Amino acid sequence: MSEHIVSAFTDELEKIAADLMRMGGIVETMILDSCAAVDRNNHDMARDVITRDPEVDRLEEEVERQIVSLIARRQPMAHDLRSVFSALKTAGELERIGDLSKNIGKRTLMLDESVPVAMRHGVARMARPVSLQLHMVLDAYATGNAEAAKTVWESDDDIDQHYNSLFREMLTYMIEDPRTISAGAHMLFMAKNLERIGDHCTNIAEFIYFQITGEYLIPHERPKTPNTGI
Amino acid sequence: MSEHIVSAFTDELEKIAADLMRMGGIVETMILDSCAAVDRNNHDMARDVITRDPEVDRLEEEVERQIVSLIARRQPMAHDLRSVFSALKTAGELERIGDLSKNIGKRTLMLDESVPVAMRHGVARMARPVSLQLHMVLDAYATGNAEAAKTVWESDDDIDQHYNSLFREMLTYMIEDPRTISAGAHMLFMAKNLERIGDHCTNIAEFIYFQITGEYLIPHERPKTPNTGI
Repeated sequence: MSEHIVSAFTDELEKIAADLMRMGGIVETMILDSCAAVDRNNHDMARDVITRDPEVDRLEEEVERQIVSLIARRQPMAHDLRSVFSALKTAGELERIGDLSKNIGKRTLMLDESVPVAMRHGVARMARPVSLQLHMVLDAYATGNAEAAKTVWESDDDIDQHYNSLFREMLTYMIEDPRTISAGAHMLFMAKNLERIGDHCTNIAEFIYFQITGEYLIPHERPKTPNTGI
Repeated sequence: MSEHIVSAFTDELEKIAADLMRMGGIVETMILDSCAAVDRNNHDMARDVITRDPEVDRLEEEVERQIVSLIARRQPMAHDLRSVFSALKTAGELERIGDLSKNIGKRTLMLDESVPVAMRHGVARMARPVSLQLHMVLDAYATGNAEAAKTVWESDDDIDQHYNSLFREMLTYMIEDPRTISAGAHMLFMAKNLERIGDHCTNIAEFIYFQITGEYLIPHERPKTPNTGI
């Protein structure tokens, strides 16, 4: 490729990266605000989170449209094609994170003020480490830092342990007071959604690492507590 | 493109479609067998389902590798590029269906013989309509039938209603006998996994429809029971 064409390609890829960062910014607020809504039983805030999701979907379609057009016009090879695929898959993961956060918002609307504060806090406590994973992996994407991506990837086990502990905690509340079973079921799904958001961050970390280094991070080499991941 | 090149492109796409059908065949057995394992408390069968998942992952990687190579070498445009993207995304959806079925297998291993038969049957009953959705959407893919894809897409609401009914049924068992709460929690996730497999079939139906017609199926125009989808 001539230098002129290479530069145009890079410009287009940067435009796509900017859209990904916007998606990332929106979904990060969705994670934090949906969990704050659970914590405070704030249905308005939950509804507000739900209204942000269509913009995330729109941005994903926009990224996809740009990528199809980029491939058709510029026919990227090797490393460039890897970058394009990485962007496409990252958009898909961010869209899923938006969906999962929206789902926490929808479930919040099913809870009333009778839900014990301790159960609410349990879910809300998980939001911080999960949103931090997302924040760190987006930074790694923006700066092209493979080592930072690997650090995010390695720390997913902390999220899994947090989830397992929360799962057990919720069950004890449900067993102690069967009136909390219905709310507890929704809160188990909320916790699971947060754990899955952690998994999506791990996937993004894998794409970034592969894009930069051309090497795969191998799942079975990741630190992993037995009996997690279900 | 010359006729010779067009034919080579079609051959490569058919090879990819064949791999997708193999993936589809494996995940269909994983859905049915994981639910049969729940129904009969058969841990060997559950473990057998789990061992099938790496082959699904391998096929997804294989499809992706072929697609990257196809785009780089043949630089498809317009309708051809749409077919290639549709195949790429379908592989991703099938891989997720495999993961969700594997997860049902893993959760089956957490259940013992004390779990009431009625709860087991409840989950198992959902396997048939869900695996049928997958079967129909794979047929639509193989035959390039947009109308058949649309039929699958329209009937996702039946799966959602089935899930909502099962969710409530599980809660009543858990409330009646708090000793079933822990098993019930796992079975709520199993039911949710089946509902999500239905969603993935719907996504595949959307790709097929777009690939063939160039038009989008619009989610808010789909028949939908209020309060489903959480």
